[in-house]
Amino acid sequence: MKLYDYKAAPNPRRVRIYMAEKGIDIPLIPVDIMKREQKSPDFLAKNPLGSLPVLELADGTCISESVAICRYLEALYPEPPLFGRTAAEKARIEMWLRRIELNVMVPVGMVWAHGHPLTASLLKQIPEAAEQNRKRVHLAYKLLNEQLSGAAFIAGPDYTVADAVLLATLDFANGLVGVPYESCLTHLKRWHGEVLARPSAAA
Amino acid sequence: MKLYDYKAAPNPRRVRIYMAEKGIDIPLIPVDIMKREQKSPDFLAKNPLGSLPVLELADGTCISESVAICRYLEALYPEPPLFGRTAAEKARIEMWLRRIELNVMVPVGMVWAHGHPLTASLLKQIPEAAEQNRKRVHLAYKLLNEQLSGAAFIAGPDYTVADAVLLATLDFANGLVGVPYESCLTHLKRWHGEVLARPSAAA
Repeated sequence: MKLYDYKAAPNPRRVRIYMAEKGIDIPLIPVDIMKREQKSPDFLAKNPLGSLPVLELADGTCISESVAICRYLEALYPEPPLFGRTAAEKARIEMWLRRIELNVMVPVGMVWAHGHPLTASLLKQIPEAAEQNRKRVHLAYKLLNEQLSGAAFIAGPDYTVADAVLLATLDFANGLVGVPYESCLTHLKRWHGEVLARPSAAA
Repeated sequence: MKLYDYKAAPNPRRVRIYMAEKGIDIPLIPVDIMKREQKSPDFLAKNPLGSLPVLELADGTCISESVAICRYLEALYPEPPLFGRTAAEKARIEMWLRRIELNVMVPVGMVWAHGHPLTASLLKQIPEAAEQNRKRVHLAYKLLNEQLSGAAFIAGPDYTVADAVLLATLDFANGLVGVPYESCLTHLKRWHGEVLARPSAAA
């Protein structure tokens, strides 16, 4: 197996954090997004959407989408379980994965696409769309903070794949995109400090 | 268990189609979106995002997010498997679930939010955002068509939860939202006819 990766992008980092938490070691093949290598014909044959990360199996099968790659690895290496054991745990983790994706990452991506100079050549930017989505991100931060007021980790008492996904998403939003969470969101801040202190955060 | 539902909305329908395919029968509790009942304090206590569907368990636990609900039911009733058996099947189904969600439903939702009279009172509509997303939907339709040129169902040779999710999404896009797929996409059309002919499509 090999993982097509780009160090500074948030979605490949989700998988790297997950692998670090599981103790899984897979060769990383760098694909330079700044040079648009992910849109080359060779790479589009691996993932027609031209996005990272992609996991290539020994038989040439390619799996794209960060969480799909993590699920594949989870099926191969079930311990420690990061997608839950019981039906209720599995559902809660999936619920939070989707809330993070749809309510945090999607609007963060819109702020990035419509508001950042680095993406200006890729689409016709609509500044008003960036502003609307910035507000959506802040609403989602409140939801995260509320959840973390009553739970150690985002999907409950244990660290799960949802924490890996949220950390990569939040660091991207706070950093490159420039939508930091408000310092009054103390539960989110507590969680952020704790997951950043884990060795996996360096991945 | 009971499922909070709204007949005309696409996301509750995903779960109803899935349940019909599995032969699962759960009481449906109607929540009237047109009367904004999903934003009432009682309902927000079940799902702080104020969205449908929500599955309420006997102990009062609430699970929201359509695919999280399906995963919960899959853990309770594994047969027939609609989320895959092998690691590769599970990953492929998750990959397509995410492609449908992020590349079809997200832009379809944007066309709906920014372009439809029914949603005009809910946000400041940006007509240019509706137009941009309409193009994204059509790009995604091509991806679906390409995949279905070589596979009976969207994630491979068998009917899976990804087909249930795609059918509900596509019918919403084609109908209420007004972004029908082009008739030249013959493989998508073939698939659409076949899944519509299954009894579960009436759910």
